[in-house]
Amino acid sequence: MIKSVVLDAYGTLFDVFSVSQKCEIEYPGKGIEISQIWRQKQLEYSWLRTLMNQYKQFWDITEDALCYALKSLELPFDEEKIRKLMNMYNNLEVYSDVIEALQKLDSVKKVILTNGNANMFDRLLINTGVNQYIDGFLTADTIELYKPRPEVYQLAVDYLKNNKNEIIFISSNAWDIAGAKSFGFTTGWINRGQKRYEQLGAEPNFTGSSLLELTNKADIKQKD
Amino acid sequence: MIKSVVLDAYGTLFDVFSVSQKCEIEYPGKGIEISQIWRQKQLEYSWLRTLMNQYKQFWDITEDALCYALKSLELPFDEEKIRKLMNMYNNLEVYSDVIEALQKLDSVKKVILTNGNANMFDRLLINTGVNQYIDGFLTADTIELYKPRPEVYQLAVDYLKNNKNEIIFISSNAWDIAGAKSFGFTTGWINRGQKRYEQLGAEPNFTGSSLLELTNKADIKQKD
Repeated sequence: MIKSVVLDAYGTLFDVFSVSQKCEIEYPGKGIEISQIWRQKQLEYSWLRTLMNQYKQFWDITEDALCYALKSLELPFDEEKIRKLMNMYNNLEVYSDVIEALQKLDSVKKVILTNGNANMFDRLLINTGVNQYIDGFLTADTIELYKPRPEVYQLAVDYLKNNKNEIIFISSNAWDIAGAKSFGFTTGWINRGQKRYEQLGAEPNFTGSSLLELTNKADIKQKD
Repeated sequence: MIKSVVLDAYGTLFDVFSVSQKCEIEYPGKGIEISQIWRQKQLEYSWLRTLMNQYKQFWDITEDALCYALKSLELPFDEEKIRKLMNMYNNLEVYSDVIEALQKLDSVKKVILTNGNANMFDRLLINTGVNQYIDGFLTADTIELYKPRPEVYQLAVDYLKNNKNEIIFISSNAWDIAGAKSFGFTTGWINRGQKRYEQLGAEPNFTGSSLLELTNKADIKQKD
C-alpha cells in the first residue's frame, strides 16, 4: 500500500534537454550537443564531488558543467552569455504528461526530492507553476551530499514518517531508481524514450512511459 | 621533493580504447561506439555503486558495462561472445610512451593504484609485461570503495609512508587527478588527446602529453 509519492525533479518533471533550443539560438548547429554534454557533466560533477567530499551547490555545478560543455566544443563565451544560458535552468519546460498526473494524485502526499538547492529550485517551481501541485520539496543541499547516496533518500523517510516500502520514489533517471531501490523504496521508472535500464541491479518495481501511466500501474490512490 | 610515484592504470598506462579494434571485428561498423559506451558506463558504475554502497568487483562492473553497451546499441550477444570480448581486458595495449618512461624512473618507488581487483589486474600486468617495471600495485578492492573516494588514495600513503605531497599521483583521467589533488597528492595529468581539464577545481601540478614528458617536467629523479 503506497502512502506517499516522492518525485525526482530534473529529467523527471522538468525537461533538462529543453535548453537545447535556446543553446541552438546562441550557438547555431550546436544546441543538441551542448545540452547533452551539459547534462552529462552536471551529473558526473554531482557524483564526483560527493565521492571527493568537495560539495558545491547544484546551481554552481550546473554552471561548471555548462562551462565545460562550451570549452570542450571550443565555443566562445563571457559572463553575460553564461548568465543568459543559466537562466534557462529557472525556466525548464515541464513534461506534457506531468500536470494532469499530479492533479489526479490528490489523495496522497507528493513531495519532490531534488539535488537542486533551495534558491534555484524555488525559482523553477514558481516560474513553472508546479508548486501548486505538490506538497513541498526536500533538497540534498541540506546534507551536502548528492543522490544516489542513501542519506539523501533518508531525508524523505524522515519527513514523511512512512516505512520505506510505503513510499514510491519516481524518477526518469535509471541510476536514481537504482539508488532508491537499493535504499528500500518502492520505485517507479518513467522511461519516456524507450531507453535500456542501467546494468546496476536494483530494477524498478514499476515502469511507465509517462507519469500518468506509471501512477496507474502502481495503483496509487487517485482522486475520483 | 618527490619521493615516490603512484600511477593509475586503466586509461593511463593501458589503453582502454584498444578494445575497439576487436569490437569492430565482432560488430563491424560499431567498434568505436561500443568502446566509448563501455568505458563511460564502466566509470559511471564504479562511481554510482560506491555512492549507493553496492560494491561489486571491477571485473564484474566492466562486464555489466559491456552488456549495457551492447544492449543499448541493440547488438546480439551470448555468454561466449561476452567471454571473448571481456578477455580483451586481460590484454589491453600499453601506451607506446609508457615502458621507456618507467625504465628511466629507476631511482624512485613506483606503484600502481588501481580500481581493478587483484585477479583481473595480475593477469593484465603479466600478459603485458608491465610487472617488470613497477614495484607493485594496490587495489581499491581491498576496501571495496572506488576512486575518487579519499580512502582509496590513502592506501598509497599507508603503503609508502611518505607525506602526501612527496607522492606524485599520475593519471590520464582528469576526474582522478581532481580526486588525488583534493586528497593532497602532488599530481601529474597525462593529456595525450589535447582534452580540456574537467571543471572540478583541483587542477594538476604538472601536465604532459606523455608519461615521459610529464616525469621530466615534474623533475622526478631519473636514472643517469
